[in-house]
Amino acid sequence: MLSEFDIIRKFFSRSPRAGNRVVLGVGDDAALLDVAPGHELVTACDMMLAGRHFFADVDPAALGHKCLAVNLSDLAAMGAVPRWCLLALALPIADEAWVAEFARGFHALADRYGVDLVGGDTTRGPHTACVQILGEVPRGTALRRDGARAGDEVWVSGTLGDAALALAHVQGDVQLDARAAAHCRQRLELPQPRVVLGEALRGIAHSAIDVSDGFAADLGHILERSNVGAEIEFEQLPRSDALIRSAAAYPERVREAILGGGDDYELCFTAPPAQREALADLEQKLGVRLSRVGRVSAQLGLVVRDAAGREIALPKRGFDHFATS
Amino acid sequence: MLSEFDIIRKFFSRSPRAGNRVVLGVGDDAALLDVAPGHELVTACDMMLAGRHFFADVDPAALGHKCLAVNLSDLAAMGAVPRWCLLALALPIADEAWVAEFARGFHALADRYGVDLVGGDTTRGPHTACVQILGEVPRGTALRRDGARAGDEVWVSGTLGDAALALAHVQGDVQLDARAAAHCRQRLELPQPRVVLGEALRGIAHSAIDVSDGFAADLGHILERSNVGAEIEFEQLPRSDALIRSAAAYPERVREAILGGGDDYELCFTAPPAQREALADLEQKLGVRLSRVGRVSAQLGLVVRDAAGREIALPKRGFDHFATS
Repeated sequence: MLSEFDIIRKFFSRSPRAGNRVVLGVGDDAALLDVAPGHELVTACDMMLAGRHFFADVDPAALGHKCLAVNLSDLAAMGAVPRWCLLALALPIADEAWVAEFARGFHALADRYGVDLVGGDTTRGPHTACVQILGEVPRGTALRRDGARAGDEVWVSGTLGDAALALAHVQGDVQLDARAAAHCRQRLELPQPRVVLGEALRGIAHSAIDVSDGFAADLGHILERSNVGAEIEFEQLPRSDALIRSAAAYPERVREAILGGGDDYELCFTAPPAQREALADLEQKLGVRLSRVGRVSAQLGLVVRDAAGREIALPKRGFDHFATS
Repeated sequence: MLSEFDIIRKFFSRSPRAGNRVVLGVGDDAALLDVAPGHELVTACDMMLAGRHFFADVDPAALGHKCLAVNLSDLAAMGAVPRWCLLALALPIADEAWVAEFARGFHALADRYGVDLVGGDTTRGPHTACVQILGEVPRGTALRRDGARAGDEVWVSGTLGDAALALAHVQGDVQLDARAAAHCRQRLELPQPRVVLGEALRGIAHSAIDVSDGFAADLGHILERSNVGAEIEFEQLPRSDALIRSAAAYPERVREAILGGGDDYELCFTAPPAQREALADLEQKLGVRLSRVGRVSAQLGLVVRDAAGREIALPKRGFDHFATS
């Protein structure tokens, strides 16, 4: 049986990469890090629990990926460069094969973005993973929720609703065709944080958020913090081929997934019309679809209209972990 | 029923204190913080789970205190000044009275040390609290585990073994008298992190660790990382009146508690003999008992001797969350 110390030594102690300014990593009471001069520290944490955020029989590599991905997504939404992370992990038993796969998924994503795991905690309990992410942004340049201005246009990266549709499929509420199911499950289980896009949006976007609670709720957070409103054209909201194919059989469900589905981890941001060309260039350069979906107004509130200009009722609110429904 | 957003707004959104360099706190995708020039960032996290680290019927205010205290203790062991924290909290139901008490215990301790809660995550699940602590230390001055040198003396703050004795009492393995039980439970449930002492030890101690896994195991971590050994005089290890009174009835248990009990959150540190006077001054000034308990040697390994000079067998290892015993 592996001990707590074996687990840390074997799977979670790696030499920090050169140039990442890790003064002291795993193995002391705390990590010592050097934040670059002229930069602000950017930090967030997200906790994922078995039975709530994932199924107990989840692929551990996918779980390792996802618990870091959702945190990287928070930093992407700030336009920050991720540098370091801490991982608190609870495991019901010290299953070496499980931990090895979890660590593989975790480190693969960390490596892609040059993130060093510098500390954490390992304990026994129901599968739980709490990641704290740390990054840097040049002072005063972070993308915040409170920067949207009337006249800005609203943009979304990638496509919306795939993850929610995958969850509905897994739960048996809808039946997707095999190809659509595979695409949507990939989106749910291996979300790709928009780290590079987030960094590129500094100096272009006025505000940003990642879509984790659902598009309407997350845009709502921007509007509330910025004290503005927005009009969104529902038909402009970006959707995958898989979602479009599924819409015929489940029109209501798909509409809900687009407006209210969480877990997409795309970026929603606002930018002035003068940035359209810069955004078209970014779309080309990064190979990330960017869709202009509406406009910020001085009039408070969020209005979503269909192709005929009729207002669409919004999901009451985004994903609330304490909602009883 | 409180929503996730209600809980955050009502109990965990407070204005950051002036001078703490919180550029952006709770309410965005991530927090923005300014680390002081010439300082390193110091960060750690600890996760506590119901049924593992505390009982499900725990006093929520004590839990709020303890989950922050154990993290502050990690920063104390580095000689760092705590500044900020993040809190990820899982709750089985959104019980307003429970959350209010938890928040009260948490904020009271945060206020004592000037720590701002700048972000986190709230979700539904078995009671789980994961705190990530962030602080600062002047560059190059942190107290590390790897700085002990042959000739250093070994010191311990406060007293050892009370928390382990309290746990044994609660579990029915020993029966303490009422006064001893009250003292030891206080130590277990409301540990007082040695933040001020840790800061004061910069420039005096060569190495430090907090006693969370047990004295022998934690000193062992220093010795291993510093590539040295130590001889400890068992009779010099500091003990409370409560523990001394209990030793007559449970000599073995008490010896185990002193050497192997975790959860005391005292500091164990090494310092050269030339610092004895400085440490005596600190003891007076801070009102914290400091005990000189042995000496670091070039000879690897940890030896603990009784009053007659006989070697005492050590607990096999400190608290291992995956041990099956």
